Amino acid sequence: MTARIDPFHAIAISRLAHRLSAEGRSVIHMEFGQPSTGAPRAAIELAHRVLDSDGMGYWESAALKQRIAHHYRDSYGVAIEPEQLILTCGASPAFVLALSCAFAPHARVALARPGYVAYRNTLKALHMEPVEIPCGAADRFQISAAAIAALDPAPQGVIVASPANPTGTIIPAEEMRAIVAICRARGIRIISDEIYHGLSYVGPAHSILEDEPEALVVNSFSKYFSMAGWRLGWLVVPPDLIDAARARMGNLFLTPPSLSQHAGLAAFDCRDELEGHVATYRHNRDLLLGRLPALGLTRIAPPDGAFYIYADIGHLTDDSIAFCTRLLEETGVATAPGVDFDPIEGHRFMRLSFAVSTDRVEDAIARMTPWFAAAHDRAARQRV
Amino acid sequence: MTARIDPFHAIAISRLAHRLSAEGRSVIHMEFGQPSTGAPRAAIELAHRVLDSDGMGYWESAALKQRIAHHYRDSYGVAIEPEQLILTCGASPAFVLALSCAFAPHARVALARPGYVAYRNTLKALHMEPVEIPCGAADRFQISAAAIAALDPAPQGVIVASPANPTGTIIPAEEMRAIVAICRARGIRIISDEIYHGLSYVGPAHSILEDEPEALVVNSFSKYFSMAGWRLGWLVVPPDLIDAARARMGNLFLTPPSLSQHAGLAAFDCRDELEGHVATYRHNRDLLLGRLPALGLTRIAPPDGAFYIYADIGHLTDDSIAFCTRLLEETGVATAPGVDFDPIEGHRFMRLSFAVSTDRVEDAIARMTPWFAAAHDRAARQRV
Repeated sequence: MTARIDPFHAIAISRLAHRLSAEGRSVIHMEFGQPSTGAPRAAIELAHRVLDSDGMGYWESAALKQRIAHHYRDSYGVAIEPEQLILTCGASPAFVLALSCAFAPHARVALARPGYVAYRNTLKALHMEPVEIPCGAADRFQISAAAIAALDPAPQGVIVASPANPTGTIIPAEEMRAIVAICRARGIRIISDEIYHGLSYVGPAHSILEDEPEALVVNSFSKYFSMAGWRLGWLVVPPDLIDAARARMGNLFLTPPSLSQHAGLAAFDCRDELEGHVATYRHNRDLLLGRLPALGLTRIAPPDGAFYIYADIGHLTDDSIAFCTRLLEETGVATAPGVDFDPIEGHRFMRLSFAVSTDRVEDAIARMTPWFAAAHDRAARQRV
Repeated sequence: MTARIDPFHAIAISRLAHRLSAEGRSVIHMEFGQPSTGAPRAAIELAHRVLDSDGMGYWESAALKQRIAHHYRDSYGVAIEPEQLILTCGASPAFVLALSCAFAPHARVALARPGYVAYRNTLKALHMEPVEIPCGAADRFQISAAAIAALDPAPQGVIVASPANPTGTIIPAEEMRAIVAICRARGIRIISDEIYHGLSYVGPAHSILEDEPEALVVNSFSKYFSMAGWRLGWLVVPPDLIDAARARMGNLFLTPPSLSQHAGLAAFDCRDELEGHVATYRHNRDLLLGRLPALGLTRIAPPDGAFYIYADIGHLTDDSIAFCTRLLEETGVATAPGVDFDPIEGHRFMRLSFAVSTDRVEDAIARMTPWFAAAHDRAARQRV
């Protein structure tokens, strides 16, 4: 039997949002995790030049691999060889490669719930078994060394995400070391999703490679570099998996987009522009954390990084899809229902992405304020 | 255990070719199946405009799906709905999607040997079982209804490729109908690789959808449209697999490159320019078929389509990797060893891609002529 894979419900929300927009409605897109800014200017300028000068055949950029290797040295003090890097069409196929290289079918792979929906579904599509570790506000929605130690039997793998989607929480360095220690002791291979690195409001995030050179690391140009639609990501594999990863890349995916590799290399030299985006996200985060309590949204994981607010709306609904749909229809604010991230508890959560301009965040708050007041009244009447 | 996946040997050849080129050697790239022409001019012009005006977030082009659906109507007389189309980052992930939607692990899937290496390896990576049907010059290197009828037990699926890689042979319309009939009778799902459609020298190739609406079809912008490095392809799925395919696309791959989707739509209006490329390939094909016999290459499958010559070099070598490596080192002509396409018989074959300018083909013939004469002498001496 082929595996049953859930759809992204946020995609349905986004389609509705675009339909409303086409009908002339004003829509604020906070449903997807993508910057509303485009690629850095210098990356776009280089892309123009490459368009006119390069035949754009199948290609892997050795220069980009070298640059990413330097990034690990400069940002984390970690030495990796360019050969350990597989350039991919975004983080999603990097994750497919990582799982396929590291684990066999029926392998048990632990991960936090809530978490990015594709972890669970890609595991299922590859006929592996997600072992979900329920995480709540008390543990900041993150897995811990203790939770991994308690799994019986030990899984073959664990997915670590810090900063996490949908919560933005970061695993502290000390806890990360404890996770590495318990995984080594139990023979558990770590896959670390570091796609939100660079987007941190509590000091820089640590790469798992600082503590565990045997881990696989997924990253991409979609978040910090603001190049989601360029579809460029990378996978770092330990030396013993290089051949397996390269063979899978060539067969399953061939090469990443040529133009994006040129532009991605240029984007590494655009730190000022990109840090400007981070400053905007930081401002948006503070604005939302300051204003959402007045809407009755008080149970929010602290977004240490990324650009999400994951808010408990259990006092207002037990159907996050219906709730987010109605919010969109009535205010034009598009958000993601929690069920995308947590099939068990997600019916009482929603996720907002604040990777939009501060004006849009302020507009969204203004639209949501009376709407949430009315939602409170409805919920109160139902409880009577 | 994770699956053992073979590398592309042509990639090693290509790396050597690029190294020689960097050392100042003149290299003719005939090792990969990619046009040396770039994207159509109008597609590049549109890409320039989009670069300056579009934020390039995650995006699926509804207009492109509509255009491709029209293409099936206009080119094949086949009615498909845009919802049946999944836009992908090239044909390789389309093939991953197709297999993953249609078959469970351990499914047996038949395919021709020789054939495109990724068929076999992607099947293995997904823990499915390739059932190779040995095909030789006598059956024009193509599978037949009789060969499928003879498989015992019946496989769950079959991969059909027409025009085929590495031979360019086309399955005649009548035989294709017979293949559909036997597959229906035996409950075998067909996956048709139509990536070389549009590149045909014996009349248009037929889509499997003309005879079998339940088949899955893989195609891309890499060959006819000359946009290999843009990484854009598509999968056509029958209505009952739409949900499964869409869910897998969202989780495993997310979206294809945004800029490529814009450019791909424009490329559909560049028929004159693209047909000019086809005229060049036709000329190159005729040139090679006329001149290769003088080099002793007489056992060649007739390339009905695509842009390959698959030549038997068994009189000269039993190690196609060493042979192609030496050819490259001594003449600068890069070709693909047959072992990429046929692990059993491929040691005595090589593949040349003629998707280069006619000047390059003439130059390659000039360089190869004395080299093959010397290779003949070496082989004759060894036989003494």
